[in-house]
Amino acid sequence: MVTIEDIRAAATRVRDFTVRTPLLATRWGDERRPLWIKPENLQPIGAFKVRGAFNFIVRAVAAFGDSLRTRGVVAYSSGNHAQAVAYAARVHDIPATIVMPRETPAIKVDATRGHGAEVVLCAPGERERVAAAVVEETGGVLVPPFDHPDIIAGQGTIGLEIAEDLPSLDTVLVPISGGGLASGIGTAIRALCPRAKVFGVEPELAADTAESLRQGRRVEWSVEDRNRTIADGLRSQPSELTFAHLQQVLDGVITVSEKEIRAAVAELAHKAKLVSEPSGAVALAAYHRGETPQGRTVVILSGGNIEPRMLAEILAQ
Amino acid sequence: MVTIEDIRAAATRVRDFTVRTPLLATRWGDERRPLWIKPENLQPIGAFKVRGAFNFIVRAVAAFGDSLRTRGVVAYSSGNHAQAVAYAARVHDIPATIVMPRETPAIKVDATRGHGAEVVLCAPGERERVAAAVVEETGGVLVPPFDHPDIIAGQGTIGLEIAEDLPSLDTVLVPISGGGLASGIGTAIRALCPRAKVFGVEPELAADTAESLRQGRRVEWSVEDRNRTIADGLRSQPSELTFAHLQQVLDGVITVSEKEIRAAVAELAHKAKLVSEPSGAVALAAYHRGETPQGRTVVILSGGNIEPRMLAEILAQ
Repeated sequence: MVTIEDIRAAATRVRDFTVRTPLLATRWGDERRPLWIKPENLQPIGAFKVRGAFNFIVRAVAAFGDSLRTRGVVAYSSGNHAQAVAYAARVHDIPATIVMPRETPAIKVDATRGHGAEVVLCAPGERERVAAAVVEETGGVLVPPFDHPDIIAGQGTIGLEIAEDLPSLDTVLVPISGGGLASGIGTAIRALCPRAKVFGVEPELAADTAESLRQGRRVEWSVEDRNRTIADGLRSQPSELTFAHLQQVLDGVITVSEKEIRAAVAELAHKAKLVSEPSGAVALAAYHRGETPQGRTVVILSGGNIEPRMLAEILAQ
Repeated sequence: MVTIEDIRAAATRVRDFTVRTPLLATRWGDERRPLWIKPENLQPIGAFKVRGAFNFIVRAVAAFGDSLRTRGVVAYSSGNHAQAVAYAARVHDIPATIVMPRETPAIKVDATRGHGAEVVLCAPGERERVAAAVVEETGGVLVPPFDHPDIIAGQGTIGLEIAEDLPSLDTVLVPISGGGLASGIGTAIRALCPRAKVFGVEPELAADTAESLRQGRRVEWSVEDRNRTIADGLRSQPSELTFAHLQQVLDGVITVSEKEIRAAVAELAHKAKLVSEPSGAVALAAYHRGETPQGRTVVILSGGNIEPRMLAEILAQ
């Protein structure tokens, strides 16, 4: 299991490559639950994923030395992890191969190539197999999207910063997909602010973790079911490793509707002056459900990579 | 004239009340002019104006003591200064009266009242006279929008932070309206990074300062002319005090078209994940004109208070 010492070590590793995001106090929350926002959309590539990617790659450089510049790194992702790995690899002058499903929007493929990565397109559902084949062929190092202690510790640096900026916090709300972000932040908050509650947030349409925690075991939802949500970054499911963390660090999971997610994207633009992708807005949506305890509440805005057309459409409503 | 010591003292005064905004490195600028953004839209009330307002009011509290809680503060503004003064006064438990022209959009009047201020509506062009009458009647202290050393020093704290975060910068681009922001930032940068160039930015439709600096004296543009620009926060003109600063600290003024301003608002949303008002986006618009020297360039995003309908309309284009 990842410890607070792992997270502190990660903070030292990623410091030069990521933004120390401010914790923004709002004045428009519920009076009994004053609201702060942690804007991870301000990271390079527009999402928290750089924290885990840099922590993993800095450690891999230390472990493999110059040979990593020949072997390269490999990742499979259709979203922010792809760009995060491509960016972190380029900063370290390491070749990156990113495996993406053929249906990935061109804008995301182009962004990943824009960071200097080689993109390999594959059939849907074949990502892991194709990535394994690339690893086999090139000797490259696979950077998993969440299922690794170095990724969890990297994402956990967010919790470290929150605890520094608002040690008296009462509640944190964190989006859950594969669970790396919530595992890391939860571990940091449990260690540094043991009185505080940590809640995960999922779309109702991809609420596999809420169900899994209720049942005490990982419950599988079909890809078709999970793909219904507009929150395209929240369609993964926890691994054994992240689920074990979530069982230890979460006080519960709140689920939100598609309508609530859209409203939160609009609210973040108008009131916080921040552009959020749907997946990045779920924690604010959950805050408005009013199900969390009274007291100082922090919501994680995890990313801002929304299609321009979708943003315009949501703001026009 | 305001000095770097005044600005350092202001930084100590405003620290507890304002956001230490990060300086965000972008990866989408011109290669020869790497681009950083200073996101002042993340301040409370959504604009840099809180820095000057807090510096002024903290000094006034020290000077007037408890009597300020009876006398109160007074300001005239239809924009961000109104909300900044209302907010800073409420934080210090001081009554605030804000004089606004009757045509001010309801959303701004409501926001100012929402911060606890009393709003006095007046005929267009009567703001200063009505504010003077309120001061006469209440014994309140007038908080000017830019024409005061404490306001200039407060806005200058932005320059202090930029110099701390990127001491090797080559160019800064700053919006100009009344000139308080550019006077303060320019003073800080001249003192701390004497090699760097500081450029003001104005809409072509409100380019009175560009003309004034060329002529070496303050040139008046009519209110009707200045009101043509979409950048409603940039329709004021420098005072003697700010013009004297601008003559000393600016290397030039760049003017931008209405179309360029709108494009910069859209670009900030899509690429920087930040919501900007038109006035807040002019520095990025100026950057794209390519008229500034090569080297590390910082643009000030001064505020994010855009009408929801205008934002939706610009992003739909």
